[in-house]
Amino acid sequence: MAYFSIGVDLGGTNLRIAAVDEQGAVLDTISTDTAVARGRDMVISEMCDAILTLRDKCQKRATLVGVGIGVPGIIDMHTGMLRESPNLPGWGDYPVREEIERRLHTRIVLENDANAAALGEFWMGAARDVNSMCMYTLGTGVGGGIVLDGHIWHGMTGMAGELGHNTVYPDGVHCPCGNHGCVEQYASATAIRRMAREAVVEKDASTLSRALQADPHLSAQEIFQLAKNGDAASQQVFEKAGEALGIAVAAFVNALNLPMYVIGGGVSAAWDAFAPKMMETIRARSFVYKATNPESQPLQQGKSTIVTRALLGSDAGLLGAARLPMVEQEQDGR
Amino acid sequence: MAYFSIGVDLGGTNLRIAAVDEQGAVLDTISTDTAVARGRDMVISEMCDAILTLRDKCQKRATLVGVGIGVPGIIDMHTGMLRESPNLPGWGDYPVREEIERRLHTRIVLENDANAAALGEFWMGAARDVNSMCMYTLGTGVGGGIVLDGHIWHGMTGMAGELGHNTVYPDGVHCPCGNHGCVEQYASATAIRRMAREAVVEKDASTLSRALQADPHLSAQEIFQLAKNGDAASQQVFEKAGEALGIAVAAFVNALNLPMYVIGGGVSAAWDAFAPKMMETIRARSFVYKATNPESQPLQQGKSTIVTRALLGSDAGLLGAARLPMVEQEQDGR
Repeated sequence: MAYFSIGVDLGGTNLRIAAVDEQGAVLDTISTDTAVARGRDMVISEMCDAILTLRDKCQKRATLVGVGIGVPGIIDMHTGMLRESPNLPGWGDYPVREEIERRLHTRIVLENDANAAALGEFWMGAARDVNSMCMYTLGTGVGGGIVLDGHIWHGMTGMAGELGHNTVYPDGVHCPCGNHGCVEQYASATAIRRMAREAVVEKDASTLSRALQADPHLSAQEIFQLAKNGDAASQQVFEKAGEALGIAVAAFVNALNLPMYVIGGGVSAAWDAFAPKMMETIRARSFVYKATNPESQPLQQGKSTIVTRALLGSDAGLLGAARLPMVEQEQDGR
Repeated sequence: MAYFSIGVDLGGTNLRIAAVDEQGAVLDTISTDTAVARGRDMVISEMCDAILTLRDKCQKRATLVGVGIGVPGIIDMHTGMLRESPNLPGWGDYPVREEIERRLHTRIVLENDANAAALGEFWMGAARDVNSMCMYTLGTGVGGGIVLDGHIWHGMTGMAGELGHNTVYPDGVHCPCGNHGCVEQYASATAIRRMAREAVVEKDASTLSRALQADPHLSAQEIFQLAKNGDAASQQVFEKAGEALGIAVAAFVNALNLPMYVIGGGVSAAWDAFAPKMMETIRARSFVYKATNPESQPLQQGKSTIVTRALLGSDAGLLGAARLPMVEQEQDGR
C-alpha cells in the first residue's frame, strides 16, 4: 500500500492542513482561520479534528506515515516544545508534540516554519534538483532554512537557519532581536512598509506620499504596485531591500558554496523590484559567486551557483511539513 | 602494525613537513625554507625528497596511510589542481596531486590551508570535544574552515569556508576580492598594520606615531605590544578588528548554531587586545549566542556556544594536513 503524510502550516492567523503522498501530490486540504486568540487548547483541538478528518478520508488508499507541523518559533528538537514563539502566545514550555501524539497516536514532527518552507522548496520546488540549498523567507519577518546534503541543518540546539538576523548595516535600524541593521529590518514586509514611510518623510515622493495619506496601512504588495507603475521612491525602497539581501546572501555564498539560494515568502512576489539590485550586490560582493555564476559560464549542474525565486508560494511550508515524517521514517529505515 | 601519515604545510615562505601517528602524536618533522621563487618544480622536488626521508625513518614501526598537503589557494577537489593561489605563482592549472602521486606512489590529499588548520584544531586542538566547528585563521589574510558533523564542508566546488570575505562594513575598505568592507580588511595582520598607519594620520597617537617613524614596517605583533603597554591608538586598532570579527562571527552563530567558533592564525596571539570587543559584539548582535552562551548559563556540552582561541598555533595546519589521508582511508573503509 502507498504512503501519505499530513502537513500542517500553523501560522499566526491561518491554519492550513494537507494530506500529501510520497510523490508530493496533494491529496486533500483543509484551511481554517486559526483563532489563535481563542487560545492554545482550542487551536490544538481544531487542528487534531482536521487532521483526523483528512486521515479518515485518505487512509483507505494509503497508510499514514505521520504528521509534520510547521510552527512560527524556535523548537527544542529533543523535547518537542516551543522555546520562543511571539506569534503563538501561551505555547511556550508546553509539550506540544507529546500532547498531539497522545491524541492522534501517530508520529508527530515539529519544525520551525522557515525550515519547513526550505524543505518544501527542496523537495518539490525551486531546489528539487540540488542536494543542498539555503532559503530566505521574506514575510512579516525574515526567516531562513538551510538544507545540507538532503537534511535540514538544525545546528546544536535546533536554532540554526536564523538568516534574518545577519548584520548588513552595523549602524542600521534597531531590531527586536537586540541587534542593529539585521537583514530583517530591510527585506521583510514590515521593513518595506517602514522604509516607505521614511521615504515620504525624507524626500519628495509624491505618488507614494499620496498613497500613504489615502491609506496609512499601505501593504508591501501595494508599495510594489507603485514601484511597478514607475514610482521612483517605491522603487528605491525595494532596491534597498535588494541591497541588504544581496549583502547577506553574498556572505553565505562565500561561506557555504551551495548550489542554490532560494528567496521565498510574500515579499518575493516583488522579485522584479528587488532582484536586480540583489543580484548586482551579490556579483560585487562574493568572489565565489563570480567564480561560479551561470551568467559568466554555461550553467552546469553542481558547478554553478543559482540565486532564484521560490516556486511554491505558501505551499512550500505545507509540503515541507508533510515531508518531515517521511524523512524521519526513511532515517529509521536505514 | 600501526598507521601514520605525513602532513605538509606549504606556505608562501615556509615548507613544514611532519610524520604524525593515528593518535595525533608528531613522530618527526622537517622544516625548510621553501624557495618559492626558485619555481614550482624545485619546490615539488624538495617536498618529495623530504617526504621520502620521513617515510623511510617511520615506516619501520608503522604503515604510511598517505600524504596530506595544505596549500594557500583554492583547490579543485575533483582534479587535484590549484584554481587560484596568488602566493604560489606558476602552480595554477598544474596537476599537483597527480604529479606528487606519480613520484611517491601513495595517497595524496590536497586541501586549502585554512581548511586544514580547522581540521587540525578539530582533531587535536580547541574543538577536539565537539562534532562541528568553524575556524577563522587571521594571518596575512583571513581564511576560514567549517567542519560539520566531523567533516570539512567543501560546498559544491570546494570553495566553501571563505569566511574572510563576509561583508562587515558595506561602505568599508576595498578588498582585492572585489568587495568593500570584508572582515579581512579589519582582522588580518595586513589590516592591523594599515589601521595603525591610518590612526597616525587621523589623530594624535604619539607612541604609535613614534614607533612607526622608527620602523615603517612595524608588524601586527609589535603593534600588539604597544597596545599591551597601554597605547590607546594601538588598542583602538585591535578593538576595530574585534568588532569586525564579532559582526562576522555573530552572523554564523545565528545561521549555523555550531557548538564552537575558533579564532586562530598569527593575529590570534593578540587575543587579549581584540577578544573583549569581539565578544561584546557577538553578545549584542547574535540572539542565538545570547540564548546559548556559557556566560549566561552553565557550560553544557552540546548546549553552549563557545567562541575561543585556537590552541595549536602553526601546528594546526600541519596536523590537519596529516589527518586528511586518515579521514579518506576511514571513509573508504566504511
